[in-house]
Amino acid sequence: MMKTVFISGLGLIGSSLARVISKNGNYVIGFDPKIDNTNFMLRNKFINASLDFNTAAIQADVIILAGPVNVIIEQINKLNQLNLKPGTIISDVGSTKASIMKAASVFEAKQIYFIGGHPMAGSQLTGSQAGKLSLFKNATYFMVPSESAKDKVCELEEILAKSEANFKTISPNKHDQIVGNISHLPHAIVFTLMNTIDQTIGKELQDINVGGGLLSTTRIAAADAEMWNAIFQDNSKNILHSINEFETELKALKKMIKNNDTNKLKHFMQHSQMIRKQIEKK
Amino acid sequence: MMKTVFISGLGLIGSSLARVISKNGNYVIGFDPKIDNTNFMLRNKFINASLDFNTAAIQADVIILAGPVNVIIEQINKLNQLNLKPGTIISDVGSTKASIMKAASVFEAKQIYFIGGHPMAGSQLTGSQAGKLSLFKNATYFMVPSESAKDKVCELEEILAKSEANFKTISPNKHDQIVGNISHLPHAIVFTLMNTIDQTIGKELQDINVGGGLLSTTRIAAADAEMWNAIFQDNSKNILHSINEFETELKALKKMIKNNDTNKLKHFMQHSQMIRKQIEKK
Repeated sequence: MMKTVFISGLGLIGSSLARVISKNGNYVIGFDPKIDNTNFMLRNKFINASLDFNTAAIQADVIILAGPVNVIIEQINKLNQLNLKPGTIISDVGSTKASIMKAASVFEAKQIYFIGGHPMAGSQLTGSQAGKLSLFKNATYFMVPSESAKDKVCELEEILAKSEANFKTISPNKHDQIVGNISHLPHAIVFTLMNTIDQTIGKELQDINVGGGLLSTTRIAAADAEMWNAIFQDNSKNILHSINEFETELKALKKMIKNNDTNKLKHFMQHSQMIRKQIEKK
Repeated sequence: MMKTVFISGLGLIGSSLARVISKNGNYVIGFDPKIDNTNFMLRNKFINASLDFNTAAIQADVIILAGPVNVIIEQINKLNQLNLKPGTIISDVGSTKASIMKAASVFEAKQIYFIGGHPMAGSQLTGSQAGKLSLFKNATYFMVPSESAKDKVCELEEILAKSEANFKTISPNKHDQIVGNISHLPHAIVFTLMNTIDQTIGKELQDINVGGGLLSTTRIAAADAEMWNAIFQDNSKNILHSINEFETELKALKKMIKNNDTNKLKHFMQHSQMIRKQIEKK
């Protein structure tokens, strides 16, 4: 059945979701503070209309909040003041979930169903033009339903079916622990690596074409600072825990190098190689 | 003028060099302990002949040692026992230079000219088939001549001209400091990251398709453990120094996250983004 879906935020993720959701015949209303994004989406018929936040929200069957984490929380509070249609499903795409689910608990008694969402897809690119229908293909797409919304997850997944994502229902705390590890930790590490390299040999760097290895490793260093600020604030506990674990492993590696312990070193690298192969395969 | 060039080691780098060197009409002799590599190279006419190490070495004008660092050092000692042609140029492709240059000092009094080499190119792939003519295009190719070989660098660069690499002459210590930073440190960090992620959420990982970010960041985790063992041994002093610097930066980041210092955090990430753009541009 055709639904009216309101997507707030038409950046990389929001604009890709608009492509996905309009693909199976839903009516998509878009909103973005950047007029270039909205115009691009209208011109390409990825959205059917553009309306201001409040007007769009009260006529939607499904609302997807696709801004940064701090904006999502503001918008949840805003939505709580509006007369939404009974039965409205609200989702988001925030990279952390615990604080968003806490904010969304205001809907529990209201016949408004909040299902936190997080597609594990991204790019260093931003904006509507960078979006694509296939962005989520085969990616894990976490679904974090609030208590009252557990039997609405299928309905949301149906609307997102053209994404060809792998949906996975999970608790907010488990979600934040996992992404703290496989997404937030790597970002923290790569930001640190870039700063270290500049600190130590910044001058020489201007004169050298680095290999593809370093370019590949540091691709995510180009990520949006505003967005990552919000993530580091919101998931600080898990991220700090992951960094501590990383520091322990790094100390162990230093010891192996210092002691010239080739057996342990080889094992450490071969294990790393094996895990890498495991995550690549899927 | 056509030269006889002997390449020992026909893996990714050696086989790519064979493609480069045969391209401008030189006579290339190849040697590799793996018969599959040698056969592939002969069949595709990337080498003109395959001979055992000693027989090839004594008829070459130029010898390139394209094995791992520890093998290169063994082969330097072997070459020192042979009756090489006076004027022979010897080079290598080892990722570290100080200990190789020390070993190669045996040639100083001998009219044998040793020029350490290190093309900043690679791939997680290995073997002759993975090599390609364009592997070194625009990459920095370090030239580390021994004292007596300084005016032979041009001759070697001419033989390697079809690589279209950016040659850069540098001292062994400076070389090892720079690659300790831009190549060895990132590998140490990524090996550690993979091990950390497995330690903390290895079980859940089997059920998740990670995003492209993590795949890109950890591409180099698939690097050859044997080769990296030799590098970590050989450049341990610089690598440990770089890791210490990294730890200091990571501690600073942890403090920013703990204190919720958004200004410093944003600056840290924006700086990282800027350095990333700088290395990408070239």
